[in-house]
Amino acid sequence: MIIQREITLSEKKRGFHLITDEVLRKFPELGQVNKGLLHVFIKHTSASLTINENVSLDVPGDLEKHFNKFVPENAAYYDHTLEGSDDMPAHIKSTIIGCSLSIPITSGKLNLGTWQGIFLCEHRNRGGARIIVATVIGE
Amino acid sequence: MIIQREITLSEKKRGFHLITDEVLRKFPELGQVNKGLLHVFIKHTSASLTINENVSLDVPGDLEKHFNKFVPENAAYYDHTLEGSDDMPAHIKSTIIGCSLSIPITSGKLNLGTWQGIFLCEHRNRGGARIIVATVIGE
Amino acid sequence: MIIQREITLSEKKRGFHLITDEVLRKFPELGQVNKGLLHVFIKHTSASLTINENVSLDVPGDLEKHFNKFVPENAAYYDHTLEGSDDMPAHIKSTIIGCSLSIPITSGKLNLGTWQGIFLCEHRNRGGARIIVATVIGE
Repeated sequence: MIIQREITLSEKKRGFHLITDEVLRKFPELGQVNKGLLHVFIKHTSASLTINENVSLDVPGDLEKHFNKFVPENAAYYDHTLEGSDDMPAHIKSTIIGCSLSIPITSGKLNLGTWQGIFLCEHRNRGGARIIVATVIGE
Repeated sequence: MIIQREITLSEKKRGFHLITDEVLRKFPELGQVNKGLLHVFIKHTSASLTINENVSLDVPGDLEKHFNKFVPENAAYYDHTLEGSDDMPAHIKSTIIGCSLSIPITSGKLNLGTWQGIFLCEHRNRGGARIIVATVIGE
Repeated sequence: MIIQREITLSEKKRGFHLITDEVLRKFPELGQVNKGLLHVFIKHTSASLTINENVSLDVPGDLEKHFNKFVPENAAYYDHTLEGSDDMPAHIKSTIIGCSLSIPITSGKLNLGTWQGIFLCEHRNRGGARIIVATVIGE
């Protein structure tokens, strides 16, 4: 069984945002799957997807600060600067973090660890609504 | 055909550890699959999975040193510090490296390159036994 | 339906190279798939795969410069130096960027965003021809 759907996420401000519930709410078919994988793919090159700790709000805050420090704006070596100082860093963060996730599904639920949640990493100051493609392969 | 199983890995000390054989030993069903994918997912946010060179022990050692330098402990900008100085760096490394791998299966074997092996990246000083979910989709 | 094929990519010089068309040309079976996933896996530990912006040539150039700065050659802490100054950085970049991609297929086409393309990231000065395994799971 393959189920696939495009989902438009609500607009987020720059930073790391827990979206587990938003994804599940917009993809109720997942409950029908006994065993399989959920693949989530973001159709953009200036935002990314990760899994990280889902309780302490300090974690997404520190992730944002760390990536801003190690992928700086206005680096002297950037040539791609026409779309704003947040643009080239967004592309680099996207390649470091990645644009897709695959998560096991077991008995109709995401088989995440207790402390794991899905995060949208919005790397632009005004990224707008982001589109993801969710694909389930399962039985 | 979908096969899925949770596997508990033996406890590892902090660093990068080759686990290809440990995973295969605990997942013998893989030999039944002619063509497909093995997905391995770690249910934690302070350890990660990667593929890298499987012979020289200097490679995992240098990876550990590199990530310790570029994801430092006790950075002045961390707010998430209650769980120890190795905790927030572990979360950041997990997002950089990633919590899952997908590997092609061909004729009952992982279709890895000659020098490729699966590594558990243990980012905590005392991470304990780690749980992974292995899912095969194949025929 | 599972389709799997090894593809040899033409040799590339060090840097980030758009390969979407080369992959599709060598994997025409993708057009038969209505719904599913394409998995692309590179069988090497000194090159990697990413998705990033497919128009401005400044983006792959800036990615190459950024990774060369933050994963330096000849770092004092490297022990794995016998295979050349570009070797250990190549292994580190491979772990940061990753050796595989999964991309949704919809109606016989890769369901990428408008600005997304597949890149081979060649981290060696002379990496030679690289082999990837393409696997489609779909219907």
